[in-house]
Amino acid sequence: METAKITERGRLTRQRIIEATGEQILASGIGGTTLDTVRAATLTSKSQLFHYFPGGKAELVREVADWEGRQLLEAQEPEIHDLGSWESWERWRAMLVDYYIGRGRWACPIGSLATQASMTDPDLASSIAEGMRAWRGLLADGVRRMQRTGTVDGSADSERIATVILAAIQGGLVLSQPERSAWPLEAALDSALAPLHGVATTA
Amino acid sequence: METAKITERGRLTRQRIIEATGEQILASGIGGTTLDTVRAATLTSKSQLFHYFPGGKAELVREVADWEGRQLLEAQEPEIHDLGSWESWERWRAMLVDYYIGRGRWACPIGSLATQASMTDPDLASSIAEGMRAWRGLLADGVRRMQRTGTVDGSADSERIATVILAAIQGGLVLSQPERSAWPLEAALDSALAPLHGVATTA
Repeated sequence: METAKITERGRLTRQRIIEATGEQILASGIGGTTLDTVRAATLTSKSQLFHYFPGGKAELVREVADWEGRQLLEAQEPEIHDLGSWESWERWRAMLVDYYIGRGRWACPIGSLATQASMTDPDLASSIAEGMRAWRGLLADGVRRMQRTGTVDGSADSERIATVILAAIQGGLVLSQPERSAWPLEAALDSALAPLHGVATTA
Repeated sequence: METAKITERGRLTRQRIIEATGEQILASGIGGTTLDTVRAATLTSKSQLFHYFPGGKAELVREVADWEGRQLLEAQEPEIHDLGSWESWERWRAMLVDYYIGRGRWACPIGSLATQASMTDPDLASSIAEGMRAWRGLLADGVRRMQRTGTVDGSADSERIATVILAAIQGGLVLSQPERSAWPLEAALDSALAPLHGVATTA
């Protein structure tokens, strides 16, 4: 019993460290986040930090990326698994704009980590790339669902359409951030969704 | 004469510091770049650094952003001022893919700075936003040139088309980076250029 209790408490501490590190990375970047700044923010000791993350900063940042990726996909539930009608795509689009802009995030934690990691941390970059591919895969599943029901043309390239949509989210945010306005993101998203409408069957 | 010589040497030193800082930011982010790391990389003293950049790190980073912005626009010459035919857009597109992918950059220095600055440095973010607007303005000029010659429909929203193209560049790069492949950038760019073709007149 006692062991289980400590394990649960440990799990919570570990999670608290991951979330605090995520906030620091969002504010100061990976390069501006060190084990010392994380220790200061979480009031943990060096030995505690290495107890939870034996791999040090690299492991901690990878855990942050995994956690941010899970959060982002969870935020898109249930819409992301339900993309089979024009209404569901519209709901997903509205949810996404609200998630980033309505709630004042302005940045994609995963896109921002991808940009930073690509230059400095190939392992992290490839783990983020995997997360991006999973996200793209869910969007491509949605396109294929539209194809199975005959709503859009079966010959359309679902992976390509999904990639263009994901690029629109990331690039739209890069432009929306400094403008503090939703419209670049919305314009990019609507343009990326247009090909889907372009291959709509008349049925 | 002597003064002019020193001034020119000073200008070169200042420029050398800006470029070295730009490289450090690309590798470690704004947060991972400090006046100490810049001093070490450029073999300059603290007093020299403050002589050239009295405003310290904030001024230095702003100078890096300005310089990267100028470099990026210069790299797009002469195509960016010549977008008045389908061939010129095609040349510009090929130039851009070569600039980012062919030459192994993989990231947009300005987009990456925008992402980092939006959270940490509002002054820098608004200066980068200005640079982005200038870039978007040149693309919108190109769309309007196509409209004046009757190549595309006069009612199309040139600013919106330009925004979607710029978002495609930024988002395409976020996806191309971890994949180490040009295709996400190219798919996003082609999709963003499609609306232009969509409003092409039959003339």
